[in-house]
This record gives sequence, C-alpha cells and structure tokens, in this order.
Amino acid sequence: MHRIAVLTSGGDSPGMNPAIRAVTRTALHAGCEVFGVYRGYAGLIQNDMRRLEYKDVGGIIQRGGTMLLTARSPEFMTPAGREKAIENLRWHGIEGLVVIGGDGSLRGAAALTAEHGLPTICLPGTIDNDMYGTDMSIGADTALNTVLEAIDKIKDTASSHQRAFIIETMGRHSGYLALMGGLAGGAEAILIPEIPDTTIEDVVEVIKRSFRKGKTNCVIVAAEGAHLNAQTIQDQINQIDAEESGFSFSFRTRATILGHIQRGGSPSAFDRTLATRLGSGAVEFLLSGKNGGLVGVQSRKLTVTPYDEVLANPKVLDAKLYELSKILDRY
Amino acid sequence: MHRIAVLTSGGDSPGMNPAIRAVTRTALHAGCEVFGVYRGYAGLIQNDMRRLEYKDVGGIIQRGGTMLLTARSPEFMTPAGREKAIENLRWHGIEGLVVIGGDGSLRGAAALTAEHGLPTICLPGTIDNDMYGTDMSIGADTALNTVLEAIDKIKDTASSHQRAFIIETMGRHSGYLALMGGLAGGAEAILIPEIPDTTIEDVVEVIKRSFRKGKTNCVIVAAEGAHLNAQTIQDQINQIDAEESGFSFSFRTRATILGHIQRGGSPSAFDRTLATRLGSGAVEFLLSGKNGGLVGVQSRKLTVTPYDEVLANPKVLDAKLYELSKILDRY
Amino acid sequence: MHRIAVLTSGGDSPGMNPAIRAVTRTALHAGCEVFGVYRGYAGLIQNDMRRLEYKDVGGIIQRGGTMLLTARSPEFMTPAGREKAIENLRWHGIEGLVVIGGDGSLRGAAALTAEHGLPTICLPGTIDNDMYGTDMSIGADTALNTVLEAIDKIKDTASSHQRAFIIETMGRHSGYLALMGGLAGGAEAILIPEIPDTTIEDVVEVIKRSFRKGKTNCVIVAAEGAHLNAQTIQDQINQIDAEESGFSFSFRTRATILGHIQRGGSPSAFDRTLATRLGSGAVEFLLSGKNGGLVGVQSRKLTVTPYDEVLANPKVLDAKLYELSKILDRY
Amino acid sequence: MHRIAVLTSGGDSPGMNPAIRAVTRTALHAGCEVFGVYRGYAGLIQNDMRRLEYKDVGGIIQRGGTMLLTARSPEFMTPAGREKAIENLRWHGIEGLVVIGGDGSLRGAAALTAEHGLPTICLPGTIDNDMYGTDMSIGADTALNTVLEAIDKIKDTASSHQRAFIIETMGRHSGYLALMGGLAGGAEAILIPEIPDTTIEDVVEVIKRSFRKGKTNCVIVAAEGAHLNAQTIQDQINQIDAEESGFSFSFRTRATILGHIQRGGSPSAFDRTLATRLGSGAVEFLLSGKNGGLVGVQSRKLTVTPYDEVLANPKVLDAKLYELSKILDRY
Repeated sequence: MHRIAVLTSGGDSPGMNPAIRAVTRTALHAGCEVFGVYRGYAGLIQNDMRRLEYKDVGGIIQRGGTMLLTARSPEFMTPAGREKAIENLRWHGIEGLVVIGGDGSLRGAAALTAEHGLPTICLPGTIDNDMYGTDMSIGADTALNTVLEAIDKIKDTASSHQRAFIIETMGRHSGYLALMGGLAGGAEAILIPEIPDTTIEDVVEVIKRSFRKGKTNCVIVAAEGAHLNAQTIQDQINQIDAEESGFSFSFRTRATILGHIQRGGSPSAFDRTLATRLGSGAVEFLLSGKNGGLVGVQSRKLTVTPYDEVLANPKVLDAKLYELSKILDRY
Repeated sequence: MHRIAVLTSGGDSPGMNPAIRAVTRTALHAGCEVFGVYRGYAGLIQNDMRRLEYKDVGGIIQRGGTMLLTARSPEFMTPAGREKAIENLRWHGIEGLVVIGGDGSLRGAAALTAEHGLPTICLPGTIDNDMYGTDMSIGADTALNTVLEAIDKIKDTASSHQRAFIIETMGRHSGYLALMGGLAGGAEAILIPEIPDTTIEDVVEVIKRSFRKGKTNCVIVAAEGAHLNAQTIQDQINQIDAEESGFSFSFRTRATILGHIQRGGSPSAFDRTLATRLGSGAVEFLLSGKNGGLVGVQSRKLTVTPYDEVLANPKVLDAKLYELSKILDRY
Repeated sequence: MHRIAVLTSGGDSPGMNPAIRAVTRTALHAGCEVFGVYRGYAGLIQNDMRRLEYKDVGGIIQRGGTMLLTARSPEFMTPAGREKAIENLRWHGIEGLVVIGGDGSLRGAAALTAEHGLPTICLPGTIDNDMYGTDMSIGADTALNTVLEAIDKIKDTASSHQRAFIIETMGRHSGYLALMGGLAGGAEAILIPEIPDTTIEDVVEVIKRSFRKGKTNCVIVAAEGAHLNAQTIQDQINQIDAEESGFSFSFRTRATILGHIQRGGSPSAFDRTLATRLGSGAVEFLLSGKNGGLVGVQSRKLTVTPYDEVLANPKVLDAKLYELSKILDRY
Repeated sequence: MHRIAVLTSGGDSPGMNPAIRAVTRTALHAGCEVFGVYRGYAGLIQNDMRRLEYKDVGGIIQRGGTMLLTARSPEFMTPAGREKAIENLRWHGIEGLVVIGGDGSLRGAAALTAEHGLPTICLPGTIDNDMYGTDMSIGADTALNTVLEAIDKIKDTASSHQRAFIIETMGRHSGYLALMGGLAGGAEAILIPEIPDTTIEDVVEVIKRSFRKGKTNCVIVAAEGAHLNAQTIQDQINQIDAEESGFSFSFRTRATILGHIQRGGSPSAFDRTLATRLGSGAVEFLLSGKNGGLVGVQSRKLTVTPYDEVLANPKVLDAKLYELSKILDRY
C-alpha cells in the first residue's frame, strides 16, 4: 500500500486531531503517502483532498475539533454517492482509507469496503463512548471532564444557596456522560436512557430527602435522551415550593444545558494518548493487510473488531456504576 | 468599634470567600472581633452567627461560593424583620455590619442604617457587574472567564462543522457577561437587554453572511434577559435550512444554556485581588467612621459611594464596546 | 467485620479524597463503622483517629490532597511502632484497615498483617503510576494532565520564539509522567530513568535537526530521575549559541521545574471514577474476607494482588510508547 | 494613512494575538491596508512581511503566543539596521507602524520615529506589567492566573503534608507576578526585587511560626529577580529539620520553577478585552495623527503617553498591597 487517505466524519470529538496526526506520521514513517480528505464523506464525493506532509499535522495535537472538518453527507448514503467517492479515491491512487468517527461513519466505511473492495479501517471518535469494540472512544474522557467541571461549578453555588440544580449532558441514546459525570461529580440523581427507572416523583423525593438530611446542595444530572428531560424536571422542581412548607428556602431553579461545549476543548492526556495509539495502530493494521473493522483498545491491547460485529452489538453501560452512585450519593 | 459582623447576601459570586477572609483578618488585625452571619439576612433574623478567628477563614481564598452561605429573606424586607435583626446584633454587641452582595443586599443594609442607625458598609458582589459606584464587582471577572471558556469550546466544534451556535449567559437586566464574553470570544452577534436593536432577521442575516464570506463558524451570545432569547433564536436558525438552498450544510443547532455554572468556580486572580482590597478597605472605612455606602474601586482608587447615589444611578454599559464588536466580528 | 479504619500514607495524590469517600460510604452502607486515621501511620501510632459519618466525607470529591492528611513515620518502620499502632486499633475495636498510598505504604500494611494478623487492604495512590497490580494508580491521570497543560503553554511561547524548552516532571524512579506527557504533548525528546539511551549530544542534535527541518519549537521533557537532568540539559543548550553559527536565533533557555504542583489540583474524571471504584471495591473485598493485597483495576476488572507479588514485581513501562514518540515527534 | 504595519517584539505575552487581530480589523474597517511583519524587528530588516486580510486574523483570539512570531534583533539596535528596516517599510509604502511589546520594543519604535520620522505607536505587551503609561499590560492577567493556579495546586498537597513550598515566578526586575500571585494565593511570604527587606532568617521564622500557630501549610513565592532566590530559600529550608527538634515533620522541599509556562496559555477575558481595546485604539490614534507614544488604559480611559515619558518613569508597584499581604497571610 503506497497511498492512503484519512477523514473525520460525523460529530467531531476532542482527540480527532491527534488521531489524524498519528495516522499521518505513522504512514509517512512507513513510506506511505497520505491524503487528508476534508469534510468527511462529502469531501470524498467532491474530491476535496490534499497531500499531508509531516509538518501539516504539526501544532494540532492540543487542538479541539478536527483540522479535516466534518460534515453530514446524505449523498454518500446512496450507492451513486459512494461510486463517486470510490472514483475519486482511485483517481488519486489511494489504496486504503482510515475513517475516524462514530457508528454512522463506520457504516459508510463498511459500505465502501463491501461494495468496492476498498480496504478501510475505522477509529472510534465519539464523546458518547457508545461503540462496541473498544473500551473507550476518542473524546469521551475530555467531554467527561467538561461535564465534571460544570458539576463542580454548580456545586459551589448550590452549596452556598441550599439549592437543587439540573445539568443536561449530551447523549440522545447513551447515558455515558451523565452516568460517569454524575458518579465522579457526586450527583444526587442521574437520569439516563438506559435505565428509565426513576420517576419524577423519585427525583423530587431525592431532593427533599437530601435537604432534610442536611445536605447543602442537590445536583441532578440528566442525559439529553433520558426519559425525563431537564425541562420536565425543572418545571417540577419549581413547583415544590408552593406545595410544601417544610423548607425555609425556595427550590426555584434553571437547568444548565451544556450542549456542544462538550464536544470542544483541548483533548485530555487520556484522549491524546488513546488517539495516538489508535491512529498509529490503524495504519499498522491497514498496511499489514488487516482491515474491515474498528480499531480499539480493549484490556489495554489494540484490537480490530469486524464491522459486522461492531454494528450488531450494543455497547453496554456498566449498570454496577449506576448502583454505586446510588450507594454513594443518596441517603 | 470593637465588634463587627459580616454576611453575604443575594446570589453568590466567586470572590465572596476572599472578601470574607479579608474583612475578617483586617478587622482582627485592627483589634476588632468579627462575627460571621450565616445565610445572609435570614441568619441575622434567626441569630445564626458565630465568632470568626484567623484560622476560620483559612483555606477559603480559592473556593467558589460563600462559606457564610446566602439566602433570600422575605422577612427582612419588612420593618418587623429588620427589628429582629437589629435586636440580635445588639444582643451580640455588634457595632458595625459588612454586607457583601448586589443591589438588593445593599437596599437591606441601607434600611438597617436608616431605620436603626447601625453603621453598615457594602461590597459589590455580583457576576452581572451592574452596580454603580465601582468599576468592577466581585465575581464578574471569573464569570466572564467561564463564559469565554464555553465560547472557545463551542468554536472548536463549530469550526469543524461549519455551524452556528447560540450561548445564553446570565443577565436578566444586564448585558455585561454577554457583551464582554462575545467581544473577548469573537462572537458574530451579541444580544443584550440594554441594546435591543437586533431583530431576528438581522441574526439570521449575520449567520448567512458569515458563512457566505467563508467563515467556518458563527457564534451568537445572548443574555438571559435579551429581547431575543436563546430559544427564539434557536427555533429561527433551525428553519434556515428548509427555506434556503444556497448552503450545503444544515443550520440545525441546540442552544447552550450556561446557567448557574457562571456563579461557580475558583475565583480568578482579578476577583481575589479585588475582593481582598475591597474587604480590607471596607473594614478600614468602617472603623474610621466612614459608612453608609458601597466600597468600590474606581480608577484604581478605593471609594465609598453613598447608598442613595448607588441606588439612584444605573451602571451604564460601555456602548462603544458593542460597536467595537460589530467592527471586529462581523463583515 | 463491624468497624474498619482508613488512612492515606506517603506522598499525596489527587483522588485520595474520592477514595476516602467511597471507602467510608460503602462501609457505612454495609453496616460497618468507619474510623478515619489522620496523618497516615503516624496517626495510627498517636491514636489520632475519629469516626467518619456519611456527611464527613461530603464536599471532598473534587478536592486535591487528602482530608486525612499524610506524613512520614519513621517510628512505624520499627516493630515497636507497629505494636503501638495495633494496640490503638484494637482499643477502638477496629477489625480491618484500608490503606491508600504507594509502595512504602503497602509495605507498612503488609507488615501489620504479617506480624499481627490484622486484615488490611491497599489502594494504589501515587502519581508515578509505578505500582504492580493495577493498570492505573489514583492520581496519575490528573498529574499527567497537569504536565500536559504545562507543555501546551510552553509550546505557545516556544513557537512564537523558535526556541527550545525543558520541562522537568516528577519521577525519581519512574518515567511515566515524562513519557506519557511527552507523547501526549508532542515533545521532541523524552528522558526517563527506564531508558537511559539518550546522550546529551543526542539531545542537542534533536534540537538542531528540529529547527533545521523548519519546526518552530522544540520541547524536551525530562523525569526528575532521568540520567540527564534538566539542569545539565539547560547548561548544554545554553552553549549551543556560542559554538554554532548556523542559526539566527539564540538557544538560551531556562528549565521549568514543575515540582509539587503535579500532586495538586482537583482530581480528573478518570481519577475520581477510579478512586471510587477502588475504594468501594476495597471495602467489599475486605468485608468478604479477601485481604492482604492491592486492589487494582486490570483490564477493566477489579482485582486483588497479594502484597508479596506487588512488591516482587516492577511495573514495566510500555517501551513501545517510547518508540512511538520517536516516530511521531522527531524527524 | 493608507497602509500600516504591525509587529510583535520581545518576549511574547498572552493577548498579543487578539491585539494583532484588533489592529488589523480596525485598520481594514477604516479603509487601510495592513501588513504583518514576522519575527519583530528582525523581520522588518529582512523584509519578512505580508498583507493581512480580515480572515488572516480569524481563529487566533483564543491562542497564546503571537502569530507574527517574535525574535531578538541585535542588528536593529544599530542605526544601519534601522536604516534597512525603514527602506523596507518605504518600499512597501507603509506609512505607520504598530509595535506590540515591552520597554525594549518601545525603544526600537522610538528610534524609528526619532531618526526617520516614521509614525509609530506602541502597545504594552509584557507579563511583568512593568510599563509606565498603562494600568495593565497585555498578558499580565493571564500570567497571574497561571501563577495562581500553581499556588492553588501546591496548597492542596502542602496542606496534606504540613509542608513548606517555594514557587519561583518570572520577573527579573519586576515583582508584579510574585506580589499579586502571593496576595491572591494567600502566600505566607513574598520576595520581590522592589522590596528587599526580608532576610533568609525572616523566611525561616515565618515558616516556623506558621506551623507553630497551627497552619497546615506554608507557601513562599519569590520573583526570579528577588534578592533571595528560590534555590537559596530551598537550601535553607532543607536545613531546618536538622537544627530543630520542635516539629514532628520534615521541612525538606523542592522549589517549583514556573519559567516560561507563565508566557503561554489562552489569554484571559481581561487580556483579550484589554488587547482588543488597545489594538483598536492604537489604530484610531495612528490614523488621526496621534503617535509617538504608548497606548494604555489608565483609569478606564485610552491614553497615549509619549515614549520619553514612558522610558523616563518606572512603573511603581503598589507597596500597600505588599503590606496588605503581611496583614492577611502572616500571624
């Protein structure tokens, strides 16, 4: 293999830049040429790519986002779109493709390989940490620290006021950020899509009990896709005051919606190291003929899990940690 | 004056702890005894106060929130409530009171002085920086840096996606955080209550023009109390896609609501220094017989502005900075 | 087991507080009483301990350092010292002991168990990440991020000046922080005790080559215990200018010695989660009769490794990462 | 004036990028062309400059360092060097020059104006905050927050160990960072070049007294150019143990040398706003015929102070703050 390409696709995540850097420099070191494709699969279709040299990926290791940009490409979801993409790749003489992204991006790579025989390999890049075949995805650790910083700040003010606060994290289908952030932040309640066992009455009860037992604050973390969303909880909490007379203080609150700040920020040490290992490993696998799968770190070892297996299996959240948070944070 | 008390009131702000520390230690150094009152005016009424020694305020200079807690006290707004408060203060032999808080807190101190002749002095503690009589309030600089960090993170991801994002800052009546955050963060549009000159059509136009001219991202910062709120802007932006065909990418977005994280965090160097100078100065003024006003730093000098003057004058935002942001960030 | 004690010993590391919290609350939840021992083994000898309730460990999860303090205790290294310790423990009716610390601390626990039959269990708390029996130690991730932040900041200024800079990390016998920090920070040279293969001439050559190839900066990371220390490298770099005429700029530099700031700071999400799992797991093991070893996370599973095995085996640094850093950062 | 140039010179400081951005965009908005000169006066001599458009200064507002680079230029200190510089400027038709830097940089600008009549104007860019004619220099606030973060981290670990620690800040001739950092960080002793009144015996006495009175830690901040340097203090502290038997713990310590990390980092809100106001103001002054001086913010107003006056007057540190730190932090 003498020429490979690399692209980032789907939602960006912190650590994509160090991954691009590791892919590029490892390939160059192995004597390969590297093309960077801009704006994901859209750029593949529009032939928006250029040669990357050693220096082109200098000074990016500490940057959030992705220097190759990313975009949605409805066209690539059609066979005709992928046809165009493969023509462009062939025109450039590109023999292998590294894709950094989430499940959707992996599906695209899988289609290219299945339909056109192009060797592809994927890296898990998503803050939701919801990909099967790797213990951690690139970006999840940084996003988690962003969530945690927000919880810590809320607690400063919550403790001063004896108040309850709600924080909404990203995660339409994944409770990873909410669960781990809540556990590491010491949240009194955590609401995640995977475990819809908490009713709004439970939440209100947790708050009341916390204050009755003398806690100075109460923080509720809810994933974007939880069965109870931040707005609902906020509305309910805002009504506590009126109903109840046992407390001397108001429960009125306003939810913090973290939104896209969770995707930004300089990648953490963990994410840079993970991205570097995965990026370098992906190239080594690709050059040695191993492709058609997701490169991950599992039990500290680099692994390649076939696309089919990745897509067929959900990544299961560690329910024990949810139980642990109950033991440690409620009483 | 041999015994003074200190309390924090209203919304907390980062830097209240260093202020408490400076008040306490300066007073002790001057031979005074110091009482810390818990939960603001509510604690004054409930006689919830205790002696503070040098060590009691150790290890708090870097902490967000307020070790004395704060609370709303509807009762203190009545003459009867203030009567109770003054009785408690007299019972303890307290001859002077230092209040750290915003306009509402200052009103309370002013009433105590007017009705009962108790010498009081106030420190400006509010992240909104909207108090007349001081160039900067304690907490505004830290809150501004929190806003800025959020903008920086959003820009990482916005640039990777060519997307528009909205950030809502605190400020029901004050555009300080939104304006300064937007200026320091390079936001394409800033919406603040003081200058309601931007229509939703303007915002949409700014976004389109930004992308047409080749910008890779577009960030809109709106104060909580702006004439156009984050939700309205979000809804409008989400409709751009459908109407228009000129762009290859979606404008769908979800607003980030920073909320109370802006009140938290370790106080910045600026806020700690400001709080330290104001806290120390307040005690010196109080002991030298100067009271009944807000201690501020104006043009680098410590000043005391009478309560009446503070309450009669609005703090005017620097409109020139708003114009400057237009020159620097739109084109 | 109805009553257990917990202590922190040796150099502190960020995450000890969440570990104490998890130990305490898990034990209380299981119906056990918990004693916190102050200042490590010294406190055990001086009978400096007190009951910990649920609330006593509230508000510490985000704090660096250890609320139980830590100290060296030469006396505990003697059989007589340990005799006193065991008497105090028995006097309180304490049936099991959780020790959080490094290798030295573990040796102490092992001696207590061996000599007096007291069930003890250890948690790995050291920023050096040099303990056998766990993939990561509590504190290493936070310390690494502190190192990384320093490297990032140095690079800002180094790039503006075309200069070479040296950063000394902690690690008298362990190159973990220097290696991982250098890898994640993109350092041009990394010097660690485990791999003394770089001569001072090599370092100078790396610097010259970097600048000749057009790099705008050059960062060297050296562990405190590396065969070449920061001072030596600094002195040598400062002489480049005089010897050589090929560069238009000066090489004069001043090393940054990070020192003890690497032990401080709010624990990262990773360290809090690790500490929480280990702390909770340690209590479960102890109560279920499993003791006499180090609780670790290995390949995502909680394990207990017998003291003898921990002490007999060095934790080996991943030499492949050292090679990887050469491939990615030098050319 | 139709064409101006901008350069950064001397040691870099965080906020130079937002200053460059404000200069460029304000000038473009006024209908001027702007040239960016690379590597300071060296680039002026080597004709290393290029046109800057609106987008060229996009995405830099949050970056530390300076996109225009900076370098020392011994040649520019000679009349012949400046002659070359002026020829290059004239060749490009450049009619005015904006210089961002410290005293040395200002001297260079003053010489260009004095010898060749070129209108120049300077912005204060130095973390030492030691320039007369402005309340604050660009970069000082960010550097101060970096120092403070280090002090906070040291305190975490110092409190856990009952130990004394030393932190060396930048400042060969200026004690600004050490004084303000020590005040905001609650340091027990502060050593600065401006006030050489503390002997090594005093320092040792402060440490002993702190611990005797029950403090859990003791932090000493020393400027690089203080009469007692970090190494001297460290050596002396390391000897306390041997001499004295009153303490149960060791005083052995290792100084943290912050070094160049103080120049790096994303500029704070304060520095970005200051740089933006100064950069924009400098262009307005220059275009309106006002030049030959340092643009500063004094008492919240933009001012221009003639070069002679800037160079003739030292910036005096606020000695009252030094006294305040003694009152608040020692006892």
